[in-house]
Amino acid sequence: MSDVFIGQLKEAVYLANRKLVESGLVVLTWGNASAVNRERGIVAIKPSGVAYDKLQPEDIVLVSLETGEPLPGERLRPSSDTPTHVCLYQRFPTVGGIAHTHSRHATSWAQACREIPCYGTTHADSFYGPVPLCRPLTTAEIEEAYEWNTGVVIAEHFHSNNLDPLHLPGVLLSYHAPFAWGATVAKAVENAVIMEEVAGLALRTEALNPNATTTPQAILDKHFLRKHGEDAYYGQPKT
Amino acid sequence: MSDVFIGQLKEAVYLANRKLVESGLVVLTWGNASAVNRERGIVAIKPSGVAYDKLQPEDIVLVSLETGEPLPGERLRPSSDTPTHVCLYQRFPTVGGIAHTHSRHATSWAQACREIPCYGTTHADSFYGPVPLCRPLTTAEIEEAYEWNTGVVIAEHFHSNNLDPLHLPGVLLSYHAPFAWGATVAKAVENAVIMEEVAGLALRTEALNPNATTTPQAILDKHFLRKHGEDAYYGQPKT
Amino acid sequence: MSDVFIGQLKEAVYLANRKLVESGLVVLTWGNASAVNRERGIVAIKPSGVAYDKLQPEDIVLVSLETGEPLPGERLRPSSDTPTHVCLYQRFPTVGGIAHTHSRHATSWAQACREIPCYGTTHADSFYGPVPLCRPLTTAEIEEAYEWNTGVVIAEHFHSNNLDPLHLPGVLLSYHAPFAWGATVAKAVENAVIMEEVAGLALRTEALNPNATTTPQAILDKHFLRKHGEDAYYGQPKT
Amino acid sequence: MSDVFIGQLKEAVYLANRKLVESGLVVLTWGNASAVNRERGIVAIKPSGVAYDKLQPEDIVLVSLETGEPLPGERLRPSSDTPTHVCLYQRFPTVGGIAHTHSRHATSWAQACREIPCYGTTHADSFYGPVPLCRPLTTAEIEEAYEWNTGVVIAEHFHSNNLDPLHLPGVLLSYHAPFAWGATVAKAVENAVIMEEVAGLALRTEALNPNATTTPQAILDKHFLRKHGEDAYYGQPKT
Repeated sequence: MSDVFIGQLKEAVYLANRKLVESGLVVLTWGNASAVNRERGIVAIKPSGVAYDKLQPEDIVLVSLETGEPLPGERLRPSSDTPTHVCLYQRFPTVGGIAHTHSRHATSWAQACREIPCYGTTHADSFYGPVPLCRPLTTAEIEEAYEWNTGVVIAEHFHSNNLDPLHLPGVLLSYHAPFAWGATVAKAVENAVIMEEVAGLALRTEALNPNATTTPQAILDKHFLRKHGEDAYYGQPKT
Repeated sequence: MSDVFIGQLKEAVYLANRKLVESGLVVLTWGNASAVNRERGIVAIKPSGVAYDKLQPEDIVLVSLETGEPLPGERLRPSSDTPTHVCLYQRFPTVGGIAHTHSRHATSWAQACREIPCYGTTHADSFYGPVPLCRPLTTAEIEEAYEWNTGVVIAEHFHSNNLDPLHLPGVLLSYHAPFAWGATVAKAVENAVIMEEVAGLALRTEALNPNATTTPQAILDKHFLRKHGEDAYYGQPKT
Repeated sequence: MSDVFIGQLKEAVYLANRKLVESGLVVLTWGNASAVNRERGIVAIKPSGVAYDKLQPEDIVLVSLETGEPLPGERLRPSSDTPTHVCLYQRFPTVGGIAHTHSRHATSWAQACREIPCYGTTHADSFYGPVPLCRPLTTAEIEEAYEWNTGVVIAEHFHSNNLDPLHLPGVLLSYHAPFAWGATVAKAVENAVIMEEVAGLALRTEALNPNATTTPQAILDKHFLRKHGEDAYYGQPKT
Repeated sequence: MSDVFIGQLKEAVYLANRKLVESGLVVLTWGNASAVNRERGIVAIKPSGVAYDKLQPEDIVLVSLETGEPLPGERLRPSSDTPTHVCLYQRFPTVGGIAHTHSRHATSWAQACREIPCYGTTHADSFYGPVPLCRPLTTAEIEEAYEWNTGVVIAEHFHSNNLDPLHLPGVLLSYHAPFAWGATVAKAVENAVIMEEVAGLALRTEALNPNATTTPQAILDKHFLRKHGEDAYYGQPKT
C-alpha cells in the first residue's frame, strides 16, 4: 500500500513525531505519535525504539484499526504502545491523532498520582476542567495485556465520568506519564505541549500559594468557549 | 493606508512579536504585542491565532484607537485581546506599546493570585514597588465584554491606587497572566522579559527563605532612580 | 599502540564525552566517560581538565586495566577520576563503559544524601529499583587513596546488597555526584541521561505530593522486563 | 592609548562579556566583566547599558585603577558598577578580573539574604567554604557613594573574616546579586558560572532534604586542594 494518501498519512505522523522532539517533550525515544484513517481502517504510528534523528517518513508503521496488527509488508515493529493507541481510536470515535510523551512536568503529576487542577486561563483555553488521572492497572490487567488495558482504563474513566475526549484532550496515567489527543495528529501534539505547560504552571502555582483556588466557572466557560464550539471567536474565520 | 509611516509601525510591532518568541516568553500563539500612534489614532496589533513562524510584517492589523474596530481594508482579524489593548491606550496616555504573554513564572504568580514582592535590585531597576495584581472580573463583567473589561479593571486598579503606569510597567491578572507596557512597544517587550525574570527570582527567593523581606526603601530608590528620571546615570547619554 | 582497533575505542570514548556535553549533563569540564577492552586489558578515558570544545579523539588516554597507569607513550594525564573507573571495571565484569557527571538534578539528590525512589515507569524502564546512594568515604579512605576508594565503596555497596550493576546501572555518591555505566560507553551515557531525567521527575513528584508512593511491583516488573532480558519486546529485533 | 597590549586587554574583556551571555548568566544588559593591568594602572570594563549583541572589542572602556575615571579620549561611559570593580581591584591585590551578573539561582540566594552552604564537591572544587553574603549598605552609604561603598562592604567582609579572595572567588550582595572574580577575567567568568551552578544545586538539595548537612571537612579539603595549591593534581601539568 504505497499510494499518495498513505504517503501523506505517514508524512503527517512523521512530522508530529519530530515536533514532539523539537518541542522538548521527548528525551531519547520516550514518546510516540499516531494518526488514524477511519475510512480505510488504518493507524499510522512510530516504530519502536528507533532514534528520532534517524527516523524517516517511510519508517512509520501501518497497523489495522481493527486488530492492531501491522499491515502485510511492514518491515519495522510498531511502537510497543500501539495497543493503547488502537484501543483509544476504537473507543473515542472523534479522535484523529494521539501523542504519548514522558514530558517533564506532566509526568511528575502522573507520578504524584494527582489530576492537574485548572488554575488559570492557559489551562481553560484547551482543557475544560482538570486534566484527569486514571487509576493504575491491576496486576491481572498488567499481566493479561498491559498496553491494551491501558487504553481500556483510559476509555472507561472518560465514559464512566461522562467526559468528552475533545473537551479534555489528554489524561495522566498513575505512576506513568501523559497521553494527549485531538481531531488530528498535529492537534494531539499541540495538546501534549499544552499539558506540559499547564503542568509546570500548576506546580509553581501551588509552590507560591498552597491554598491556590481553581479558576472561577465564569472564566473557565469564557476561555474554553471563545476558542471552541459555535460561538468561538478566537483565530481567523474558517474559509 | 500603506505609506512609509504605517510600514514602520507594522515593522516595529512585527519585530516586538518576534522578540517575545525569541525570548522564550511565548509558547504556541499565547501572546501578542501592539503599538499606538496617538496622532493618527491608530493601534497596530498581532492578528488572532496566527502561528508566529508564519507571521509577516504586513499581517499586523490596524485598528482605531477610538473604536477598537479594524480600519477599512484590513483582511485579518486582530488579536482577540485587542479591546484590552485599546482600553489601556485610552486610559494610560503615556503608554506607547503593550505586550501580553503567558510566560512561565509570571503566569504562575497570576494563577496564585499574588502580587510579586520586590525582593531585590533586579526588580527595583524597573518596577518601583511590587508588581500589582488585579482582582478577577465579575461574572457580569465577563459576560458583558470580557476583553474590554479586563482593560477597565487594570486601569481602575492603577487609578484608584494612584500608581504611575511607567513606574510600574506591568500587571498580573488573577487566574490569567501578565500584561506589560512601556513608552514604546520595544520597551513593553523588555518589561515583559523583566517581569518574567523577577517572577522567577521571587519564587526561588521564597523557596530559600519563607521569611524573606522586601528590598529596603533606600536601595529601591537608588536603583529605580539611577535608571529613571532627571538624575539617571545608567547607560549612555541621550544624544 | 595505534592500530585500527585503538582508533575505534578512542573514537567511541570521544563521542561519548561529546554526547555528555550535548545532552546538557556537563558544565565546564565536570564529567568524563571511559570504555574498557577486557581482551587487551585497556581502559580508554578522557584526559584531565581539557576543555570539551578542544577535545579530539586522539587526546583520549589509554591506561592499564590492571594498574590504572597510562600506557607507555601517552602524552596527556588521564582524568583525575581514573582510579574510580578502573576499580569499577575490575569489580564489575559485565560493565563495558562508565560515565561520570555533575548533572543538575542527580547531583542534588547526591548532595541531599538520598537514594532516588522509583516513582514511575520512566525510572522502571531502566533502573530496577531505587537508584542507590553510597556512604561517604571515611577520612582515612580519603587520605589513603580518594579516587580508588570511591570505586571500592561503590562496588562494596553493590556486592553487600546483592545488586546487579546492569539492573541498576548507576549510583549516587554522598556529597558528590552520580556515576552511571552500561554494557558499552554509549549505554553508560544513555544511563547518565536517564538518571538525570528521573532525578528531576522524582524531585517534582515529591514537591507535588510529599506522600508520593513508589511504583507498584507489578508495573516495575512489567516495564523493566519488557525492555530487558529474554522476554523483552521493546525496540526492533536484534539481527 | 591604542598599542597592541591595550588591544589584547580589550579583547579579553570583550570575550569575557560575551561568554557571560553565552553561558546564560546574563539577560538584557544585566552584567559586566572587567580586567586590570596593575603595571599600567588600567582597568578595562564594559560600557554602560550597551546591548551585548552590538558590543565590539573597541567599545570596552579604559579607566584609571587609581581614580576610576575614564582615561582621556574614551568615548563611552563605563559600566555604572565601575566604582565597585575599581574598589575591589584596589583592595584585593591578587585579583585580575571581575564578573558581575544577575544570574538566576545565585541572585535568588542574594535576595533571600543567605550565604550558600557547601553541600558537595562541585562547590568544594572551587569555593573553600560557603559563598559569603555581605550585609546591605546603610542608607548613608547608599546616598554617599553607592557603587564604591558596595566594593568597600565586600572588601571589609573578607578582611574582617580573614577570607582569601582566591579561595572564595565570589560573594553575594544582600537584596542584589553575585560578584565573582579570579586571577584573570576568564577565570572570573568561570567562577560566575560555578556560583550559578552551585546555587542551583544547593536550592534543590534543600528542597530534597531540609536537614541536609554540609560537606565533611575531609572531602572539602580533598576536593579544593586537589585543584589548588602546591599539591594539585587535577588537569594537565603547567608547562
